[in-house]
Parts: sequence; structure tokens; C-alpha cells
Amino acid sequence: MPKLRVNNLAISLDGYAAGPGQSVQHPLGVDGTRLHEWVFATRSGNAMLGMEGGDTGIDDDFIAAGDEGVGATIMGRNMFGPIRGPWGDETWDGWWGDEPPYHHPVFVLTQHPRPPLEMAGGTTFHFVDGGIEEALERAFWVADGADVRIGGGPATIQQYLRAGLIDELHLVIVPILLGGGERLFDDLGDATRRYECVEVVSSPAVTHVRLARTSA
Amino acid sequence: MPKLRVNNLAISLDGYAAGPGQSVQHPLGVDGTRLHEWVFATRSGNAMLGMEGGDTGIDDDFIAAGDEGVGATIMGRNMFGPIRGPWGDETWDGWWGDEPPYHHPVFVLTQHPRPPLEMAGGTTFHFVDGGIEEALERAFWVADGADVRIGGGPATIQQYLRAGLIDELHLVIVPILLGGGERLFDDLGDATRRYECVEVVSSPAVTHVRLARTSA
Repeated sequence: MPKLRVNNLAISLDGYAAGPGQSVQHPLGVDGTRLHEWVFATRSGNAMLGMEGGDTGIDDDFIAAGDEGVGATIMGRNMFGPIRGPWGDETWDGWWGDEPPYHHPVFVLTQHPRPPLEMAGGTTFHFVDGGIEEALERAFWVADGADVRIGGGPATIQQYLRAGLIDELHLVIVPILLGGGERLFDDLGDATRRYECVEVVSSPAVTHVRLARTSA
Repeated sequence: MPKLRVNNLAISLDGYAAGPGQSVQHPLGVDGTRLHEWVFATRSGNAMLGMEGGDTGIDDDFIAAGDEGVGATIMGRNMFGPIRGPWGDETWDGWWGDEPPYHHPVFVLTQHPRPPLEMAGGTTFHFVDGGIEEALERAFWVADGADVRIGGGPATIQQYLRAGLIDELHLVIVPILLGGGERLFDDLGDATRRYECVEVVSSPAVTHVRLARTSA
């Protein structure tokens, strides 16, 4: 059975998956880039940006594995861009330049319809205004037997967790304190009770934790 | 210079340092004992309870190190017992039996004065109603050049963090989700900005993180 996965979701020691105050200047919130320094130290992290170099090892393996077997990605609107409300002139085409590092269909949750946006390298952004389950159905349809990944941000992952739809959640604990931002583990009620830890492994930089939904 | 330390403070992946609903039946809150299973798997953890057996290794080393060089402990009233308000008949003498595992003076923060309580094995509980700084001053005085440790609970550690008084904070991330309870990293404002991670090491059971206050 194809799965709904979250991979390489970085959280600080104080539980923040994004810093406060997201803007064009701070796509991950103020100080949020500190959550992702470990990514760009890896070979696979650099390759996502079209660059060479970087380390191999545990972190690189997890970054690479995060892309394997994924046929579609779902993301919240705030992960796609800083615009709130209507799309305006529709010139915003994501944070990632002409060739985003997805190379498959990406479903962006929004209240505001917009035509699909086809980018170089196989990424097409589809804007879904019918809610998280419609996005999931469409994503599994186009993934055609492959897994679907939720890219983020925290609020989108929370929505899918509350709905009990996520099969695997791979967290990366970054040993920093952000002091504020968007928490992953907030307002989840009993939604996390069905998850158990199936792997913990630390690199010199971060600690990887894999959680899986129990069948019970 | 002697330090104010927190050692072996266990938190869940979702950030809880104690479960919800502390009571006589659940001293660490409902499900809170799951935060401490790693302690009682170690030789030093068992020794605290007067028992033999248990594992050596990383976790055992950290448990043992948590006691080294400590001359006094400070704890919140809820860590001392489940009684709220006045002390009543004063028969409550802690969770730990006749010989508590401290073996030095312990300062219990409370609004309600009570005479000192001398236990077997060198532990005396002193009840301090003058606030966190008075407790700290008295603790450093009796520690006589040794370090002072804050035992907990989370609310007490938060008070000392907000006041900028903690020098070292050793967290133990336990790979479970509690879903509720008392968070360590809440309502701290900018108090964590001056801390940086100086060590991360994982055992098969948990991940140890040592944070230290920067001199800046």
C-alpha cells in the first residue's frame, strides 16, 4: 500500500518546525534557516539546489531517502509562498526558482483557486481549494502506486495528523533553541497516541527519529 | 565557580517533561513514568532505589554524572509531593521513602512554611517560602563550593531559566509522544537565547543534549 509520509521535518529542541515571522526575506521564519543548515551540509541537500559537494553519511542518506518512492507532494500555501489572500497577478511561482526540486506534481492547499503552474524539471503546482482530503486523493491518483509526501509546513502536517492520515513521520531534531515560531506538536489532541518510535539515530549534527502509525 | 545545573531532565518528543494529572498514584503525571524507564534500566538508576543490577554505558554514565559534585538540590513543591495548599498534619515526607536518594540538603520551594525534615542518609528537606533566589542563596551556601542542582519539576526549572540563573541544562529526549502534560519550553520569552548546545549523544534508548549558557 502506498503511504502518506513526512520526511526530514526539522524541529528545534524547543519544538519549533519554523521560526516566527515568515516573509519573502525569511521563507522559514526568522532564524528558521538554522533548522536546515544540516541539510545543506549534505551532498543530496546541495544537489537539490543544483550544486555539487557536501557530505555523505547518515544525514545524506536520510535526505536521499526522503525523495525515494515519492510520486507527489502536498504542501500548505505558506510553504509555497509568502502571499496571503488572493493570488494577485499570479507571478509568484514558489521559492525554488525555475526548476523546483520536486520533479513530480505538487498539490498546494489554498482557499484561492488558480490554474496549474508547470515548471521545468517535471514539477507542476496544482492549487487545491477543496480541502486536505481532496488534495490527498488527487495526490495518490497521480502518484499511481508510489507514496505521497507532505512537504509542510507545520500547520499542514498538523491538519493531516489530526485527521489520522499520516502513516510515517520522520523528524530531525536540531540541537538549537529557537525561542519561538510554529510548533509541530500543538493542538493535536489524541492524534499522536497511535504513533510509536521505530528508529532513532544521531549524526554528529542532528538526531533522526522515525515514527510510524501503529495498526491498532 | 560552582554552577547551577539541571541534569537528566527527560522530555518527550512532543516536549513534555511530566505527564498530565499528577497525583499520589501518578507522581510524574499520567504516563509520566514512560519518561523515566531509561533511568531504571541503568545500574545507577537502580542504585538510587537501593537496588542492584542494570546496564552500564552512556545512560548510566549520565545518571552517575548527574550526582557528581552536587552539594544541594532545589525542587518545586510539586516534585516533593502531591499536597497543594497548607501542609496539613505534616506527615508527608516525600516520594522517596525513609532514605531519599539525595544525601545532601534539599530546598523545597513553597508558599507554606514548615520546619526542616531530616531523613536517613544525609538528606534534609528545607522548606523555603522566600522565593527562588533565597533558595538558591541558601543552597549555594550549604553546598560550600560544590554545584547546586535543580531537581524539577518543569515549572521550577522555567522560573530559574526566566531569571537567567541556570548555567547548564542536560536534557534527555525520550522517543515517545505523551500528547499532554507539562512542557519545559513554554513561557520562557527570550530566556533561552543565551544557551547553546555543547554535546549531543544518543544511546540505544534516548538522546542526551547538553546546553550551556554562553558567556556573552
